[in-house]
Amino acid sequence: MFITFLSDFGLADDFVGTCHAVIKRIAPAAQIIDITHGIDPQEVLQGAIVLANTLPYAPAGVHLAIVDPGVGGGRRALALELTEGRRLVGPDNGLLLLAAERLGGIVAAHELTNPAYALTPVSATFHGRDVFSPAAAHLALGVPIAELGPPLDPEALVRLDLPSPEVSDARIRATCLYVDRFGNMQLNLGRDQLEASGIVPGRRVRLVVGDRAHNAVAARTFADAEAGELILYQDSYRSVSLAVSSGNAAERLGAAAGTGVVIEVPA
Amino acid sequence: MFITFLSDFGLADDFVGTCHAVIKRIAPAAQIIDITHGIDPQEVLQGAIVLANTLPYAPAGVHLAIVDPGVGGGRRALALELTEGRRLVGPDNGLLLLAAERLGGIVAAHELTNPAYALTPVSATFHGRDVFSPAAAHLALGVPIAELGPPLDPEALVRLDLPSPEVSDARIRATCLYVDRFGNMQLNLGRDQLEASGIVPGRRVRLVVGDRAHNAVAARTFADAEAGELILYQDSYRSVSLAVSSGNAAERLGAAAGTGVVIEVPA
Amino acid sequence: MFITFLSDFGLADDFVGTCHAVIKRIAPAAQIIDITHGIDPQEVLQGAIVLANTLPYAPAGVHLAIVDPGVGGGRRALALELTEGRRLVGPDNGLLLLAAERLGGIVAAHELTNPAYALTPVSATFHGRDVFSPAAAHLALGVPIAELGPPLDPEALVRLDLPSPEVSDARIRATCLYVDRFGNMQLNLGRDQLEASGIVPGRRVRLVVGDRAHNAVAARTFADAEAGELILYQDSYRSVSLAVSSGNAAERLGAAAGTGVVIEVPA
Repeated sequence: MFITFLSDFGLADDFVGTCHAVIKRIAPAAQIIDITHGIDPQEVLQGAIVLANTLPYAPAGVHLAIVDPGVGGGRRALALELTEGRRLVGPDNGLLLLAAERLGGIVAAHELTNPAYALTPVSATFHGRDVFSPAAAHLALGVPIAELGPPLDPEALVRLDLPSPEVSDARIRATCLYVDRFGNMQLNLGRDQLEASGIVPGRRVRLVVGDRAHNAVAARTFADAEAGELILYQDSYRSVSLAVSSGNAAERLGAAAGTGVVIEVPA
Repeated sequence: MFITFLSDFGLADDFVGTCHAVIKRIAPAAQIIDITHGIDPQEVLQGAIVLANTLPYAPAGVHLAIVDPGVGGGRRALALELTEGRRLVGPDNGLLLLAAERLGGIVAAHELTNPAYALTPVSATFHGRDVFSPAAAHLALGVPIAELGPPLDPEALVRLDLPSPEVSDARIRATCLYVDRFGNMQLNLGRDQLEASGIVPGRRVRLVVGDRAHNAVAARTFADAEAGELILYQDSYRSVSLAVSSGNAAERLGAAAGTGVVIEVPA
Repeated sequence: MFITFLSDFGLADDFVGTCHAVIKRIAPAAQIIDITHGIDPQEVLQGAIVLANTLPYAPAGVHLAIVDPGVGGGRRALALELTEGRRLVGPDNGLLLLAAERLGGIVAAHELTNPAYALTPVSATFHGRDVFSPAAAHLALGVPIAELGPPLDPEALVRLDLPSPEVSDARIRATCLYVDRFGNMQLNLGRDQLEASGIVPGRRVRLVVGDRAHNAVAARTFADAEAGELILYQDSYRSVSLAVSSGNAAERLGAAAGTGVVIEVPA
């Protein structure tokens, strides 16, 4: 049985390793796949996007995800049952819901309240170790999800506000959702929306970020552009991204997650 | 069989991966749990504290730990047998002893000298690969600990000086032992000691760090404080820590591992 | 079956985790050993050196390596069969060839063109996920290498230019190939070449880097030098390296991969 694991814990401390230890103590035969632990601290939206992008590539199993600024407060802890044997475990702050939708929707939702499937006493600050990892391990062992706690109405779960792009004929107002280590900037935009504005590979556009304008070109891949050129392309998760060929787009544009990007198509 | 693994190797280079490779070549079925490789380079005390904090959460097995500024010099290499089938492997510099005590004490200690259980030739600078990983792998395969080398007197092993807090009625002089990626500062102080000075959740205190004083409040969890407030709380390893709600305590206080912190209770 | 994995993907993003997920979906029983993902972005030579240094320590199996600045361009994707059941998978840019030679040479080379062993559609920018990981997983399952695509002439594969040292009687002109997290600098030099110039442990030499000269001493290990001293030693991969005892050689010398280092033996 597979348990995938995504968090904002980083790898400098023991948080991830301790969760692995807890899981292996309960479910020694479970295989853990670390998706990433490099989500920026407490950035729930970034975690939700990366989880939704990556889980379709993962084998079915238990999908543990922890980006949890509300730990120790009143937020609920969740286990969600999806179709095809997939189950998601994490906090009720919107982190899990984009992925759940991408994977076909929620069949059942339960709150993690049964102390038989947690470490006791539960600490006030490390529910990753004390609540979420044990729940994931017990699910991997075959414990029915309804054992973990009472059912919840899926409609009543916390949802994130995803910014929507504004698309008009010759102008798109988008938002950067995520910047990766290479400085590539994923936008809240699909290729269909780009092409509806006539932006196909080879087309030159203007980007306005803050009060500065930049030239860019729509391209299929980095290799289609010259070194240093700003390109607009469909990334490997089928979103539209900005990159600089052999360079760093986020640095060039002074942009980060949340930055607005206006794309203008010259007449 | 499980092998847990903690070190200061970081993940930028191949050190950790090469140790994994060496272990898997000797013991293909061993499961390796990486506790962390983010111990600050050569910080033996930090490694000892993190090891002692985390091993109680790990399944019994072989516990490999390497923070080894003395590699290539005269320090001995160790395997320790504890109760409950746990065995520790690492350098004789104090790294292993806090954990050994926390787990019930040492049943037997042996020096790693048998070349049959090392890679040959042993390099002068990478005993992680050539001495410690092979020893851990052979122990996981079932080699008796006495095969690895001659017995040592547990009383003669190198011990670390752990700083002790000075606790008086209205004043505690503590030391920061460890700072995590969120800037939370673990002190050499237990909750009992805090409460003996009358510091219970809700109580306001003054912190003196260097020549500056700060206001703080004792709290149960981050959620009990306002954003930006300095809090004193029992952390998830049951030590007393300092944090800033939605902020970074070590940056705010200009503190690092080793920094002294005076806690004063107003009359 | 083992799959070792080296890349320049870093661990901040999901690239490594997504490749693990893809492999596990195809070959659930494969054991993945992460050698390192900390190769500097797009530094093919550094990746080639680390791969060649480390694979001799790894169990036989499939060795996946991805440092791929040419993704999406015309470079070919490769699977190489070596002796002893080892197979290498990665881009045709020289990354794999140092390791292949170190492990006994290439028995057969094939281009990865068979879409039955890739994810479809193949993205333009993430062949790690869509081409290389699936190929490695299918090889681990036992798919014959010839199934993956047509044979290639091993002589026609892309090779890297490795800088050669210039060794004369009292002077060696070397190049730094790699700097690790401790600032230790691996040179393109073997111990034989050093000793041919009379540089044996204990011998004092001068290093010229840029327009500055430094004193250094040949040593067997860090422990043979005083704190702060520059030493020249045979590192754990049997190359000659520069280090500062309890310090950082690359910072001291203002050096990085590619920097020239002249070693002069005083008369």
